[in-house]
Amino acid sequence: MDTIDPSSRQRAALAKRYGEADVPALGPWSETLELLLSHRTLRGFSSAPLPANTLETLVAAASSASTSSNLQTWSVVAVTDHDTKVELAKVGANQKYIVECPLFMVWIADLSRNNRLGREEGMHLEGNDTLEMMLMASLDATLAAQNAAVAAESIGLAMCYIGGLRNDAARVAELLHLPPGAFAVFGMCVGTPKPGAPSEVKPRLPQSIVLHRETYKVGDEKALRTLYDQRMGVFSKRNDMAMQTWTQRVVQRLAKLSGMSGRQHLKETLIRLGFPLQ
Amino acid sequence: MDTIDPSSRQRAALAKRYGEADVPALGPWSETLELLLSHRTLRGFSSAPLPANTLETLVAAASSASTSSNLQTWSVVAVTDHDTKVELAKVGANQKYIVECPLFMVWIADLSRNNRLGREEGMHLEGNDTLEMMLMASLDATLAAQNAAVAAESIGLAMCYIGGLRNDAARVAELLHLPPGAFAVFGMCVGTPKPGAPSEVKPRLPQSIVLHRETYKVGDEKALRTLYDQRMGVFSKRNDMAMQTWTQRVVQRLAKLSGMSGRQHLKETLIRLGFPLQ
Repeated sequence: MDTIDPSSRQRAALAKRYGEADVPALGPWSETLELLLSHRTLRGFSSAPLPANTLETLVAAASSASTSSNLQTWSVVAVTDHDTKVELAKVGANQKYIVECPLFMVWIADLSRNNRLGREEGMHLEGNDTLEMMLMASLDATLAAQNAAVAAESIGLAMCYIGGLRNDAARVAELLHLPPGAFAVFGMCVGTPKPGAPSEVKPRLPQSIVLHRETYKVGDEKALRTLYDQRMGVFSKRNDMAMQTWTQRVVQRLAKLSGMSGRQHLKETLIRLGFPLQ
Repeated sequence: MDTIDPSSRQRAALAKRYGEADVPALGPWSETLELLLSHRTLRGFSSAPLPANTLETLVAAASSASTSSNLQTWSVVAVTDHDTKVELAKVGANQKYIVECPLFMVWIADLSRNNRLGREEGMHLEGNDTLEMMLMASLDATLAAQNAAVAAESIGLAMCYIGGLRNDAARVAELLHLPPGAFAVFGMCVGTPKPGAPSEVKPRLPQSIVLHRETYKVGDEKALRTLYDQRMGVFSKRNDMAMQTWTQRVVQRLAKLSGMSGRQHLKETLIRLGFPLQ
């Protein structure tokens, strides 16, 4: 039994996320909120096997998420094969935790099921050819995945999203035998921490930047960003990360198309993979 | 204290989601998993005000979700103004619960912050002009929103996503004063149930359809779909919904572009809203 009272724990959780100076007003609280607030991305996994039927449990959480108009335009491919993980890691900027983790879930925006349904019913589903449906399928996959992420953390596991699979979505489709109309939105490492793996709650932009009331208003964003740069600089130093402010990170990532590690070609790749994006 | 043992509760939750015939193997369990499995979309809200500082609490959960490379390319606009909700409901197929709910959160794929950052740093961020970044911002908004959804349910509130805002993303941008490079991915009603509002756990496709092991394999999908059609038929009848199988729903929605309520134009709309989609 934790002897610290709930409001102290709540304040402490909010301070870790936003910094002492930017703790928002305390509202309702729950064990699940405490879990959500304590989320940390893990980047070093032990090879310990997962509890029996963990995969089915995470997928049940994923299935329980909202899905656009109940169309359920997502799938997930569970990869445990070492050689496949090695190949997927090559796509994902050689992040070695993709190979380390005992379960690598690849979340699929899946319009191929609708395509098959249309063929079986004797028609071409025009809607499937739109940008909207590529986006809807990606959102459905993300809603499902985030429920699985929360579920994993609720049973003492840790996780890490791998957006780097979009560096070469065509290669991922080839490795996982995806049919036309299906692509990997991102991967997710699931497992238990390797001893000593760094894992600290990462500071986020203050609520005054991301939360707008009634209409969108740009406040004193530049000054707030400077403060956040300082917080992230301290965090990076403490976590042995490349010394970089948040502003530097954004600029490095987005200033030139060549800094996007292949993702600047995603549009052409998706068209080749059976998403006309009309 | 619930006197039913955890594995019975777990089995019951899985049976509600997948049907008695498709209960997956029982794995680890937690209170949060029980919450996730019990998710129901609510479509009738009372006008009761929310507990103090609910909004800040939900946004703290949203901020704690993973975000692509920590770029945090999302924002949220919290709408409580009656007249604005009325106008938003007109975009969202006149769903009256948009007006009823005490808090309507509009989740924004937000590249405008990066655009401003670039200008302040004296450069144009080329990456922002890509399809990839429109998608990343939409994924970031969705990860954040789903954490807020789970948080809301964990404190006894109910919610409903409103994808219908994409029927006319330009009108939503106008109503909420969104800057170029920002668009509303979806809305979210938050509140407490109106007495008698239907709210039952909705059956989902079985795991054998959505979960693939090692590689994507299409199994006996057509036969499984027929069974799911039967389950959804029974569910629809019990919940006073239009009698429709799942197959009929997919076909009605996607067979013709004209069935997409305006979303077939999303590509052109996003380009106009400052997403070049290159």
